[in-house]
Amino acid sequence: MTSHHPIMSKDELTAFLDREFPQIHEGGQTFFVDEIGPLCARMRMDYHDRHLRPGGTISGPSMMTLADLALYAAILAHIGPVALAVTTSLNFNFLRKPEPRALIADCRLLKLGRRLAVGEVSIFSEGSSDVVCHATGTYSIPDRR
Amino acid sequence: MTSHHPIMSKDELTAFLDREFPQIHEGGQTFFVDEIGPLCARMRMDYHDRHLRPGGTISGPSMMTLADLALYAAILAHIGPVALAVTTSLNFNFLRKPEPRALIADCRLLKLGRRLAVGEVSIFSEGSSDVVCHATGTYSIPDRR
Amino acid sequence: MTSHHPIMSKDELTAFLDREFPQIHEGGQTFFVDEIGPLCARMRMDYHDRHLRPGGTISGPSMMTLADLALYAAILAHIGPVALAVTTSLNFNFLRKPEPRALIADCRLLKLGRRLAVGEVSIFSEGSSDVVCHATGTYSIPDRR
Amino acid sequence: MTSHHPIMSKDELTAFLDREFPQIHEGGQTFFVDEIGPLCARMRMDYHDRHLRPGGTISGPSMMTLADLALYAAILAHIGPVALAVTTSLNFNFLRKPEPRALIADCRLLKLGRRLAVGEVSIFSEGSSDVVCHATGTYSIPDRR
Repeated sequence: MTSHHPIMSKDELTAFLDREFPQIHEGGQTFFVDEIGPLCARMRMDYHDRHLRPGGTISGPSMMTLADLALYAAILAHIGPVALAVTTSLNFNFLRKPEPRALIADCRLLKLGRRLAVGEVSIFSEGSSDVVCHATGTYSIPDRR
Repeated sequence: MTSHHPIMSKDELTAFLDREFPQIHEGGQTFFVDEIGPLCARMRMDYHDRHLRPGGTISGPSMMTLADLALYAAILAHIGPVALAVTTSLNFNFLRKPEPRALIADCRLLKLGRRLAVGEVSIFSEGSSDVVCHATGTYSIPDRR
Repeated sequence: MTSHHPIMSKDELTAFLDREFPQIHEGGQTFFVDEIGPLCARMRMDYHDRHLRPGGTISGPSMMTLADLALYAAILAHIGPVALAVTTSLNFNFLRKPEPRALIADCRLLKLGRRLAVGEVSIFSEGSSDVVCHATGTYSIPDRR
Repeated sequence: MTSHHPIMSKDELTAFLDREFPQIHEGGQTFFVDEIGPLCARMRMDYHDRHLRPGGTISGPSMMTLADLALYAAILAHIGPVALAVTTSLNFNFLRKPEPRALIADCRLLKLGRRLAVGEVSIFSEGSSDVVCHATGTYSIPDRR
């Protein structure tokens, strides 16, 4: 019922997000699906004024939005666009101040069950290997027939 | 050094947030400090298009922003505007779909130490007693002299 | 299907835990159900050598066991002994060193759905009002017919 | 002040844990340091009656003890035995029923700061690649002179 290989391509996923979640692009698109693979996904958030806090640092809520979106996209890519997963919990550790640059979210699904999906995300400043924010999330998958 | 009674009033806190975090009001003010008390705070997020997801439900990231802001405001009210606390971790459980109404965040500080503050937040739809989102957060407090 | 009032008494719950989880009493009983109420429960962990860390403080794992047990008992009291809930996530904040005394775990269910239950626990040293450990937990409830 | 390379060997760390935390070996040693590396550590928990739940599955508290111990050991190996780190938060996701076998905890430090260390742990049944439990933890490091 759930596969460990993605059943949506990067382009199909992008088209789905554009159509169903237009509000994430409000004020100009900054979120991009970079890559989809077996049980994993990579998203990118461009540097933009609306993600900033005073001092030029990227806001916590922007990083939380990116992590949730990356996990959501990874799950969707594996279960398809019919069943809408619902976020049930998210845990974040904020480790370092992000640089004033794009952020990359590398996401890995730890479990993809019939009712529950769980994954983790590491967020980096583009071109750096230091994790600035780490997240884990759990998602409820509705009954499908 | 840290008191269990707030040392900033609701108006002082509001003025501080308006001055230091103008970006939270971008697109029209929706976040308001409703109340400050001993080790607690209440914030309110007005219902607004930019907080929505398809179907009229309020987005997870908007609730996460509200929770983080409520905890931050509660800490600030007790330690004063000099020392800027930094969010180190946040944990969220999403319990129910919020109604299409304003959200109220009730926040309680569980610990207010010299270096670390910890609190929890329950978010409700205005006029309801069902928790729609529960959060706990930890904040690092820089050294003060 | 799920009620907001307990359907098992304190004595029924105690008998169930004694029968199904005898290993929590290994080395002498230290865990006790103190109270069951609407969407809440109180458990107690007696002070005992096997819960200690060097310096006489109570170990983190002992507090985590107490929190998980309190949440589990609260859920069971409301859904009955047939359907066994499974812990899916736990989040802990350790706030203060516990005193060398019994610990009390006050637990409140935030959601008791058909498939998912979520609750929070505050752990205190007996006779004190300072929270030493705060936990939130989510539990999966198997399909019942 | 903190190095990204361990300054204690596996044997030094084992000797330190045996001396300072004898109670983790009560009832027979089941916890072993398997490996220490740059910003990582691997611990092992042997299968033993006292870690079980009815049905032969390994208990949640046993896995939580293993995760906390693995993170603690990884931090200690990098900062040395003088400064005792204190667990400030732990987050767990329980993903699958562990097999009736030894568990391996693979731990990676995401941040090793002057005051705060953060890491994540994946726990596997020995010989399997499915994560049964995933944890993240934060640890406060006392001031050193």
